Amino acid sequence: MLVINGKSFGSRLMVGTGKYADFKVQKEAVAASGSEILTFSVARMHVADASQPNFLEEIDVGRYSLLPNTAGAKTAEEAVRIAKLARSSGLCDMIKVEVIGCQKTLLPDPIETLRASEELVKEGFTVLPYTSDDVLLARRLEEVGVHAVMPGASPIGSGQGIVNPLSLRLIIEQASVPVIIDAGLGSPADVVEAMELGADGVLLNTAIAGADDPVKMARAMALATEAGRLGFEAGRIAKKPYATASSPQEGLG
Amino acid sequence: MLVINGKSFGSRLMVGTGKYADFKVQKEAVAASGSEILTFSVARMHVADASQPNFLEEIDVGRYSLLPNTAGAKTAEEAVRIAKLARSSGLCDMIKVEVIGCQKTLLPDPIETLRASEELVKEGFTVLPYTSDDVLLARRLEEVGVHAVMPGASPIGSGQGIVNPLSLRLIIEQASVPVIIDAGLGSPADVVEAMELGADGVLLNTAIAGADDPVKMARAMALATEAGRLGFEAGRIAKKPYATASSPQEGLG
Amino acid sequence: MLVINGKSFGSRLMVGTGKYADFKVQKEAVAASGSEILTFSVARMHVADASQPNFLEEIDVGRYSLLPNTAGAKTAEEAVRIAKLARSSGLCDMIKVEVIGCQKTLLPDPIETLRASEELVKEGFTVLPYTSDDVLLARRLEEVGVHAVMPGASPIGSGQGIVNPLSLRLIIEQASVPVIIDAGLGSPADVVEAMELGADGVLLNTAIAGADDPVKMARAMALATEAGRLGFEAGRIAKKPYATASSPQEGLG
Amino acid sequence: MLVINGKSFGSRLMVGTGKYADFKVQKEAVAASGSEILTFSVARMHVADASQPNFLEEIDVGRYSLLPNTAGAKTAEEAVRIAKLARSSGLCDMIKVEVIGCQKTLLPDPIETLRASEELVKEGFTVLPYTSDDVLLARRLEEVGVHAVMPGASPIGSGQGIVNPLSLRLIIEQASVPVIIDAGLGSPADVVEAMELGADGVLLNTAIAGADDPVKMARAMALATEAGRLGFEAGRIAKKPYATASSPQEGLG
Repeated sequence: MLVINGKSFGSRLMVGTGKYADFKVQKEAVAASGSEILTFSVARMHVADASQPNFLEEIDVGRYSLLPNTAGAKTAEEAVRIAKLARSSGLCDMIKVEVIGCQKTLLPDPIETLRASEELVKEGFTVLPYTSDDVLLARRLEEVGVHAVMPGASPIGSGQGIVNPLSLRLIIEQASVPVIIDAGLGSPADVVEAMELGADGVLLNTAIAGADDPVKMARAMALATEAGRLGFEAGRIAKKPYATASSPQEGLG
Repeated sequence: MLVINGKSFGSRLMVGTGKYADFKVQKEAVAASGSEILTFSVARMHVADASQPNFLEEIDVGRYSLLPNTAGAKTAEEAVRIAKLARSSGLCDMIKVEVIGCQKTLLPDPIETLRASEELVKEGFTVLPYTSDDVLLARRLEEVGVHAVMPGASPIGSGQGIVNPLSLRLIIEQASVPVIIDAGLGSPADVVEAMELGADGVLLNTAIAGADDPVKMARAMALATEAGRLGFEAGRIAKKPYATASSPQEGLG
Repeated sequence: MLVINGKSFGSRLMVGTGKYADFKVQKEAVAASGSEILTFSVARMHVADASQPNFLEEIDVGRYSLLPNTAGAKTAEEAVRIAKLARSSGLCDMIKVEVIGCQKTLLPDPIETLRASEELVKEGFTVLPYTSDDVLLARRLEEVGVHAVMPGASPIGSGQGIVNPLSLRLIIEQASVPVIIDAGLGSPADVVEAMELGADGVLLNTAIAGADDPVKMARAMALATEAGRLGFEAGRIAKKPYATASSPQEGLG
Repeated sequence: MLVINGKSFGSRLMVGTGKYADFKVQKEAVAASGSEILTFSVARMHVADASQPNFLEEIDVGRYSLLPNTAGAKTAEEAVRIAKLARSSGLCDMIKVEVIGCQKTLLPDPIETLRASEELVKEGFTVLPYTSDDVLLARRLEEVGVHAVMPGASPIGSGQGIVNPLSLRLIIEQASVPVIIDAGLGSPADVVEAMELGADGVLLNTAIAGADDPVKMARAMALATEAGRLGFEAGRIAKKPYATASSPQEGLG
């Protein structure tokens, strides 16, 4: 059971709603994922313009917890402003803090992310910052009161999977709030790896929306999330150079 | 659907029956795995001695296809003799050829494995040889008529997972018979990786039997096998240095 | 030629002076490394206590550029104080900013490192901060005027080598100051990998001091640094699935 | 000192002579590599046709030991015939057995390689077979009397480096003859990695000839070979999750 700021979720998989060819595929893929938390850019909510089409109308909003993100923000101030706009819709009080520091790599700015998170905690939001895998930055974010940390596995949309399992494991070991691996996961194997590291959940968007068959991939990701969690809980065998070795892995490194 | 020598199987996960603490856990784990093919050492069948306890009595043999292996054989002649002993039980005509060339690493002997496989094909067995990830040896095995090839991911019981994805992929690409990844898989992530490479199935024993909670791990492995297969079929996104890159991975390789 | 704040160095290898069994081995290893820049904890300079033995007395200080580090500092203020103490010795105006945020992993605190670096630049030091591999933090450090950035390959003293080549490459690509890979490099292969990524230099301590034969390892590291740099300059061949493939790596990825 | 069948060599780097733009660059690169053993396809010797240009005329043959290879052979018989043709030139009694089983991947045929090696040992050659990284095949080759084994790191010309360090290490551990890592090495880092595994030497061709600057790359490879060997001899530090950990790598694996 994933618990974020006192609220429980049966699924440990969060999915994004962008990049789909059409709303129908999006809706089917979201359903196939079994996810209970949907993330999307606040800009796409069209909160200020009722005349625009709105992807949320296609989704049974009552069935999901909404996690709008502050995509587009380059500073803490912008992120805070976007978060407040989202809350004004009356649909949510969770916010994924996303302050991008580089428009090429879409990697987060550590300083602005920390500042925005601190402010949004004070404003009473449930705050989930997207962050790099910097171990001490994750700790700093916890210290200002965030309700989960969301370190990236690799750059957004890259599909490179977990580049730095060491840092993610250190973040997980030290954390007293949930750790959701976000960004860069590209396939079910990446998801299982994240969950086996002990992550509390994963967030996916491009990996599903960009697959040849998004609905089938969504189903694969749901199974992968559960397989990884069960594997983590079941306690895997140790790695050895060979079965007859009593020495640890390093014997043959 | 996995098809071996004309016979279809709904599950792509094969499991071994050795190394369990007791028959009860073994039975539950086998059930949780959803596997339809069980492998075991012929020596443990006690075909020649009805007075001995026999693990098969605990299993509803009618529900499973049995895949006895020739563990213990060091030469082709020994493997052929063991295979015939297994068939004499009337329980099976499939045989996993296992001719170990090194008692320390439990790696297979390529020459004896090829000789045994050729002979057993002639004798009318359904032949599945355990082999290294040598690409040309796998081809040679196909040329003598085996019905599947079972390359190892890493040494038996090592839990090291897939050391050489390149060779496995080349074997899969060239194969006209099913490729079952055998030996060394240690966790659900390894299973998903194998299936995403395009393997037709996986075989597990130590990874389940040696887990802290074998029954839960068996369930995890069943989900992982399905997640990996669906992921393979769904067509994953390409890897890129970052989302905005149009260049391939190697741009930042 | 490595150039830091206008000063040129023939060797791209910097070495630490701690953790040696005795001053004699230290002196020989430093000589074998061919390094021109030595790093050490300011605390070990005993600047305030002339009666204490001082490792610098064993080293021909005139032959080397000294790069004291602020080890021991947990805040920006402490780092600035230590840096000023080092400069008061009259031996150096370079400072390696090292503000550790976690005494278990010895990973750096991003916020305090940035604050200390900004202040020390203002104070006229030549500033080289030890940092994580957070790409945007490295950029922030450049923006406050540091003269080189020193991202870690993995935790100090871990010998794990380069865990995240992707982040290091992004840091190198964006940097307009030298990038020195610091911390975690364990063997000559790690050093060559760092240099092939395009790093301007590497800093080693434990990998040499903790080797079975530190003097021989120092010689290996000197050759590795040069081999890696030459390899980077010479332009390596592209990776392909096999020689006859015209498709890129991803064809068989 | 590398010793093959009683003959000693100062350099552990062997280089191929093919794929160069012209003989002048080839000659300079070979000199820069410091290699004492040159390999080349027998077909290029033009032993039967004195009227053809011959790359060997450009090389001071007296300075090098020649290691012709049987490239082009698809069977043991063809390899033996080519080897005898090479020896008939009076220039060499060493032969690199190369029996390719797949014209796409250029991977070796294990059965024909073993047969050819056995026959050539009987014929009195100094026999160095190019082989896969199949551990038991390497042992079989030793059993028929070869004087070194040359397992591939990855497919010829692929530049993928060492895909399977585990198998190479097992081959090295069991071997009583020199192990030369051949095929697939792409950069100095790959060479150092091979030498740190304990290899007795490496063989390179495409990695040098195909570099943007072959002569500089040859120099880099010479340094890398030496750095890797010294690093192996000097005894590297153990890998740990972090410096303060007394537990082995697997603590954070």
